[in-house]
Amino acid sequence: MDSNGVDEQEMKLVQGAAGYVLEDVPHLSDYILDLPTYPNPLQSNPAYSVVRQYFVDEDDTVPQKIVVHKDSPRGTHFRRAGPRQKVYFKPADVRACIVTCGGLCPGLNTVIREIVCGLHYMYGVTEVLGVNCGFSGFYSKNTVTLTPKDVSDIHKRGGTMLGTSRGGHDTSKIVDNIQDREINQVYIIGGDGTQKGASAIYKEIRRRGLKVAVAGIPKTIDNDIPVIDKSFGFDTAVEEAQRAINAAHVEATSVENGIGLVKLMGRYSGFIAMYATLASRDVDCCLIPESPFYLEGKGGLYEFIAKRLRENGHMVIVVAEGAGQDLVAESIEQQDASGNKLLKDVGLWMSLKIKEHFAKQRKMDITLKYIDPTYMIRAIPANASDNVYSTLLAQSAVHGAMAGYTGFISGLVNGRQTYIPFNRITEKQNKVVITDRMWARMLSSTNQPSFMNPPNGTTEATC
Amino acid sequence: MDSNGVDEQEMKLVQGAAGYVLEDVPHLSDYILDLPTYPNPLQSNPAYSVVRQYFVDEDDTVPQKIVVHKDSPRGTHFRRAGPRQKVYFKPADVRACIVTCGGLCPGLNTVIREIVCGLHYMYGVTEVLGVNCGFSGFYSKNTVTLTPKDVSDIHKRGGTMLGTSRGGHDTSKIVDNIQDREINQVYIIGGDGTQKGASAIYKEIRRRGLKVAVAGIPKTIDNDIPVIDKSFGFDTAVEEAQRAINAAHVEATSVENGIGLVKLMGRYSGFIAMYATLASRDVDCCLIPESPFYLEGKGGLYEFIAKRLRENGHMVIVVAEGAGQDLVAESIEQQDASGNKLLKDVGLWMSLKIKEHFAKQRKMDITLKYIDPTYMIRAIPANASDNVYSTLLAQSAVHGAMAGYTGFISGLVNGRQTYIPFNRITEKQNKVVITDRMWARMLSSTNQPSFMNPPNGTTEATC
Amino acid sequence: MDSNGVDEQEMKLVQGAAGYVLEDVPHLSDYILDLPTYPNPLQSNPAYSVVRQYFVDEDDTVPQKIVVHKDSPRGTHFRRAGPRQKVYFKPADVRACIVTCGGLCPGLNTVIREIVCGLHYMYGVTEVLGVNCGFSGFYSKNTVTLTPKDVSDIHKRGGTMLGTSRGGHDTSKIVDNIQDREINQVYIIGGDGTQKGASAIYKEIRRRGLKVAVAGIPKTIDNDIPVIDKSFGFDTAVEEAQRAINAAHVEATSVENGIGLVKLMGRYSGFIAMYATLASRDVDCCLIPESPFYLEGKGGLYEFIAKRLRENGHMVIVVAEGAGQDLVAESIEQQDASGNKLLKDVGLWMSLKIKEHFAKQRKMDITLKYIDPTYMIRAIPANASDNVYSTLLAQSAVHGAMAGYTGFISGLVNGRQTYIPFNRITEKQNKVVITDRMWARMLSSTNQPSFMNPPNGTTEATC
Amino acid sequence: MDSNGVDEQEMKLVQGAAGYVLEDVPHLSDYILDLPTYPNPLQSNPAYSVVRQYFVDEDDTVPQKIVVHKDSPRGTHFRRAGPRQKVYFKPADVRACIVTCGGLCPGLNTVIREIVCGLHYMYGVTEVLGVNCGFSGFYSKNTVTLTPKDVSDIHKRGGTMLGTSRGGHDTSKIVDNIQDREINQVYIIGGDGTQKGASAIYKEIRRRGLKVAVAGIPKTIDNDIPVIDKSFGFDTAVEEAQRAINAAHVEATSVENGIGLVKLMGRYSGFIAMYATLASRDVDCCLIPESPFYLEGKGGLYEFIAKRLRENGHMVIVVAEGAGQDLVAESIEQQDASGNKLLKDVGLWMSLKIKEHFAKQRKMDITLKYIDPTYMIRAIPANASDNVYSTLLAQSAVHGAMAGYTGFISGLVNGRQTYIPFNRITEKQNKVVITDRMWARMLSSTNQPSFMNPPNGTTEATC
Repeated sequence: MDSNGVDEQEMKLVQGAAGYVLEDVPHLSDYILDLPTYPNPLQSNPAYSVVRQYFVDEDDTVPQKIVVHKDSPRGTHFRRAGPRQKVYFKPADVRACIVTCGGLCPGLNTVIREIVCGLHYMYGVTEVLGVNCGFSGFYSKNTVTLTPKDVSDIHKRGGTMLGTSRGGHDTSKIVDNIQDREINQVYIIGGDGTQKGASAIYKEIRRRGLKVAVAGIPKTIDNDIPVIDKSFGFDTAVEEAQRAINAAHVEATSVENGIGLVKLMGRYSGFIAMYATLASRDVDCCLIPESPFYLEGKGGLYEFIAKRLRENGHMVIVVAEGAGQDLVAESIEQQDASGNKLLKDVGLWMSLKIKEHFAKQRKMDITLKYIDPTYMIRAIPANASDNVYSTLLAQSAVHGAMAGYTGFISGLVNGRQTYIPFNRITEKQNKVVITDRMWARMLSSTNQPSFMNPPNGTTEATC
Repeated sequence: MDSNGVDEQEMKLVQGAAGYVLEDVPHLSDYILDLPTYPNPLQSNPAYSVVRQYFVDEDDTVPQKIVVHKDSPRGTHFRRAGPRQKVYFKPADVRACIVTCGGLCPGLNTVIREIVCGLHYMYGVTEVLGVNCGFSGFYSKNTVTLTPKDVSDIHKRGGTMLGTSRGGHDTSKIVDNIQDREINQVYIIGGDGTQKGASAIYKEIRRRGLKVAVAGIPKTIDNDIPVIDKSFGFDTAVEEAQRAINAAHVEATSVENGIGLVKLMGRYSGFIAMYATLASRDVDCCLIPESPFYLEGKGGLYEFIAKRLRENGHMVIVVAEGAGQDLVAESIEQQDASGNKLLKDVGLWMSLKIKEHFAKQRKMDITLKYIDPTYMIRAIPANASDNVYSTLLAQSAVHGAMAGYTGFISGLVNGRQTYIPFNRITEKQNKVVITDRMWARMLSSTNQPSFMNPPNGTTEATC
Repeated sequence: MDSNGVDEQEMKLVQGAAGYVLEDVPHLSDYILDLPTYPNPLQSNPAYSVVRQYFVDEDDTVPQKIVVHKDSPRGTHFRRAGPRQKVYFKPADVRACIVTCGGLCPGLNTVIREIVCGLHYMYGVTEVLGVNCGFSGFYSKNTVTLTPKDVSDIHKRGGTMLGTSRGGHDTSKIVDNIQDREINQVYIIGGDGTQKGASAIYKEIRRRGLKVAVAGIPKTIDNDIPVIDKSFGFDTAVEEAQRAINAAHVEATSVENGIGLVKLMGRYSGFIAMYATLASRDVDCCLIPESPFYLEGKGGLYEFIAKRLRENGHMVIVVAEGAGQDLVAESIEQQDASGNKLLKDVGLWMSLKIKEHFAKQRKMDITLKYIDPTYMIRAIPANASDNVYSTLLAQSAVHGAMAGYTGFISGLVNGRQTYIPFNRITEKQNKVVITDRMWARMLSSTNQPSFMNPPNGTTEATC
Repeated sequence: MDSNGVDEQEMKLVQGAAGYVLEDVPHLSDYILDLPTYPNPLQSNPAYSVVRQYFVDEDDTVPQKIVVHKDSPRGTHFRRAGPRQKVYFKPADVRACIVTCGGLCPGLNTVIREIVCGLHYMYGVTEVLGVNCGFSGFYSKNTVTLTPKDVSDIHKRGGTMLGTSRGGHDTSKIVDNIQDREINQVYIIGGDGTQKGASAIYKEIRRRGLKVAVAGIPKTIDNDIPVIDKSFGFDTAVEEAQRAINAAHVEATSVENGIGLVKLMGRYSGFIAMYATLASRDVDCCLIPESPFYLEGKGGLYEFIAKRLRENGHMVIVVAEGAGQDLVAESIEQQDASGNKLLKDVGLWMSLKIKEHFAKQRKMDITLKYIDPTYMIRAIPANASDNVYSTLLAQSAVHGAMAGYTGFISGLVNGRQTYIPFNRITEKQNKVVITDRMWARMLSSTNQPSFMNPPNGTTEATC
């Protein structure tokens, strides 16, 4: 650690005038001396040679803070992504591998495709391996060879052609395997847990002094990775969520006192729920993990439901999967029947609770329809916007690794491709800031209660 | 009842040569004498007057049996639907009403639209009322006026603009209300339960000697109504089910030992599951109410899952909501925790059971993703094919009522619009015949086991 | 020819009581004596063996005429399609080939897939060849081997994996090639021209006395093949056409005096235009080849456009590609500039003419938007309904060829799979009958003029 | 004009340290003295009051230049959009109007909806008028009243509910009309021509000293408006363009030497063509207005087509509508037959030229299918992403007008909502920079020729 408490293996700080700070990513030359460099093969590529200024200036950086005052300090910057005049790998020597980890997300196949095609067509790299079934596949599975032909059509399919997995892995065995197979570029596509794993792999590689570049491409359908503008697949997910909300709206409006309840992805962050609500305009209440709510009593959800049904005769509720987990836990903690496992699902739990409440009340006959479109959303292929975005992320990662950077993820910051140190995206999660304007826009569109005053500070109060 | 045991209020039998039988529908003139008739206004409609042979010949009938031998008897026939030269209502005197009952189904709004537009544009009828929220709406709700303008765009929206409901109603109060409001044509859109109600309403009207035509348009997304070729909305449902199956397939193929489980509609009949499976070709096992199955032991589902996963690494299961209800009942009967209510859903129940089985076995780590697209399917608008079909059903009903027929439903038989007596479609349900060729085609496409030999005749046998 | 003027090579007539006629298809045993037969391998197929009555009764036939009177003669029948107890080919001896000809149509790949899979899984046939690029590919291209794995996913893609072509071919060289390659089952997918070619191939094979079964699967996106209920892909085409009509409607309603003009497929038959119009309800005028129209003067199109624009401010016109060809020909006959070639396209021609007319009139500023979705429609994959239908057609063809039938096409008649002699579907075209009820329904939905009284009998009259 | 040559009515320059420049928008108080202010009603809105920091700091600005060096000057900034603590209109006094001009674009209805709802729900403004059919509608049409209920569902429909028009208008009559109707907020949605008109209206209003805020929302499906990140509807257009490219690809691959040619929007800027090509990966050649090309001779398009067909057997070409206009003009200049008007369409022209070339060459039989999806793209409703974006643009415009800003457009700059002076977006067009990296990415994905060396400097050279 340096005097700023920064682990220099993770991030290199560069200061400038007017409060300028560059949080730079590691480079192979940081720990390997006298690395040879080579001219970038793009210089003689017909597609690129006509393009002046194609190469990124070494000094290009991108500010994180974009709303500024006339005299405000310039703040944190990240290194701009893109091809460099010089590369640190001879194309013929490159042996790259790609691995995908965690849950499905639209665009995974596009990222795989574009790493393969980027290495092949831009740099003339022909050896690219796919690691099957996530991190543990490094040592428990055979690899597959990936050529442009193998990946030609995969962006039109959902899922990941490499397979994926969750769960534990052994960093040391992975690095052994990387060493044994003589892999020198590792592309790791996955969420924050995966990128923590990627960071550990990078550190172990650095500890062993290996010339292996480790590049992460952050994947999270929930958009819960900080710093970057948004994660690939998020747009597609919000789009596809509209179908479920539309269906809930039709169901709710076709009966008396109809309630349509839609659960959307978002274990810790309610971005999909919030954007899907904003895009749809048919939602009466949007519940997310960042904004606590309660069911009973004054200002509670039951009261709001009753009010909205009296006014409109129907309502649509969107709930992120991570919303109300405290309520769910409290409610099912003393029950162990096997069916109750299902109640950990906030959507199923809420549908039961709401039905029970109104059945007990006997004042209003409600009809509730619960829709969980999760797997129908995350399994579709990326839309055009995410296809282009995934392409840029993949190409940026390839440019970075070829240029000798390591221990970085490629991410979009204020609309520009950048390289970001692992620790900046794994140290915390991106959350909906409920004191910020987007949430206010959402509240304004639904006119839902603020759930600010739980009775007696509890959520299961007398009613 | 006549000598054939046929209730003549329900159905009029006409015999012909070579085994010809016409199962004719009732007519207002059966119980009201000396009804005046009027020339059909279509005779002077510019759109129709250019069309020779537009009017249906009184003798036109359509055979139910279509696969015949050279010398086989001609069998049952139904009256062909369509406009008649003479009508039994003066357009200015008509006061029609429309009601929708039961669950949502693509095409409901199209049927409503086309009854309104058919009455208006073909016959010059201007008084059409909508009854809100199903049968009980006759006496518990205000009616709405329906003009072509009101219904102009509703076919592009899912659901029913009139609202619907399930559950009990009072036939006598409905007929009182029909009488009080001076309604003389009643169009009833709903499933077999609804059509039984429609039949009772028709009989009570007949008992009171009222000049009121009662026409049913059978609605069932499950396609479980007999006699007719298929129900409106079924095509749309099978189409939309492809999305869920595709998602299940992507999920299953993106992990090791991945299982995608999709529940589709079909409480008593597995048509949607069967056709969706045939259309998709990505399904490994299709379970329907008509074909019992069992989980454990030789020839059971667990064994088949293990086998298919060993062979392919993934599998997709489609289960109709009514499949395996005996297993479900047996499994949850002694448990009353609130979460277990959820287990009445065969899809949730199966996902728990399969996960528990493989967790207990400890031989294979499976990942199961369960998708229930029910409400996303039934809430969409009709596709083009169902829009045209719904239009024809609605127009046939209008032609029939105007011509004085009553106590009938309009239905497609062997590709022709016909009028069918209520009792023929309510006396039993349409089922997938598992000794017939379509089921064999399905079995052939999945290669699933026949589940013919449950061990010890039980389904929860030793394993 | 027999005494009825029927070519017995084409069709075998069988008479029965009450006016029953069976128009039977040829069989290999008609011209090859003492052919051995074998038990159908389906008898021991686990999927089929559980299904009683799976095999078609030899006497099963399907009537063409379905609207009957009590005493009407029974009329024409066709042989029911399906598996027979005995087959005329030993599976190990079968060497089948598949060829696709003519324009694209949704479902082509499904038919290919299901012939391959049907032969393989139902009959154990392993040698299936694909002929590339249509009829001439028999002698000018290499064949490709088709296994279930090769065709596994093709039903999800539009077009034809075998390639197609239009234009001339040499029957003799094709049959030489069939003989040389020892092919004994030929599956030919194409329109009426193609089926005429298939008929010639069948006759040449018969002339040479070869044991080769020739089966056609009729393909026409226009639905212009007679006898059969509808052609595969038609449903998908009508569905996809809705997009274009919707767009035309939005364009027309977003400006003053907006006209949306959509050209749909249908060179000789206006089925797609008519059904798409009926399904949409946003169309003001539908023009098809079967119903002549004229532009100028009283009762002409210009007058109707002006009227509708005055009333509603916008209008949508759907024109089938073959509509008004007499007008087009007359209009461009004396011009040979290269741009005028484009005017053979009735859609481009009409947009120019309408714009010119209203520009000349100077009474009304119109804005016309022309949409030609042809290739966007025909290139999509089959929807679920067409996927199931294509499967049945393919399986029927396979059952027929295995059972020794030849010189037939497989087609749906009144909802049942049948075998139909080539001549019945090539001797004339299916047309919209404009004196029939479906056209009246369409006219009633648009309220368009009947174009019955062209001024002075000409179409470019004084105005 | 000030000393910088800046028209101060258009834009107010504010300088800061380190090269900071703020290009500020006009304000009503710039020309009307002693305007009273009022507290922002959002302060007591339940949805917003819970959100701290909801109001924009007066000093918030957003930099235009985002790729910076450690010591680079800070450059141009724009005022951040959003609600201010004080507003310059009492809600009860506001009388707003909305007008849409120019061609259709997905999202128009969403912008209309959100201006109405934003004014109503955020500020309590109840008087909002819609001007029909574009600028000239101010004086030639009646206005319509717009309430939240009127616009509730319009975001689900394409087009513009207000109607639109192109062409001339009379600024003075518009301002007369604004004055006569006592309108004090004018929202103008349209492209660069429209925004020039908006600027003139603003200046005339300022000249007359009226307290009327003029806000523009830039609309261009082509994305050809400078400064802003992208225009609303662009994402939706790129997405929808995939259908056409897919169809072209299927057509091309289903025949021998098949060419699929797709024309996409882009009169002066090829953004849609470029992004659609990048998103699809099925395109072999993308032609845009910014990058000249030629047909004949070495390095020309014909040569490339022949090469690609020899290699792959098929190819897909995407051409922006404004590409090759010099070639088109040259080719048709001496012809005046009416059909040749059609040839101004580069897509029709290219299809004829390519067909003629290969017909003349007689070496290769090609089959070319031309697809023009323009109206099918621009008439669809906005996707979820464009719905959210359009919402933010509309709300920003409302916040700006309420805060007394005028003569501005609301636009996204580096991901942040800003207010931009009219002149900055009308003084030039946004173009694809073909010496920049995105174009290089595109070239790399297609491997198309650079068209850098036209033979003899001409495009119709000997071949």
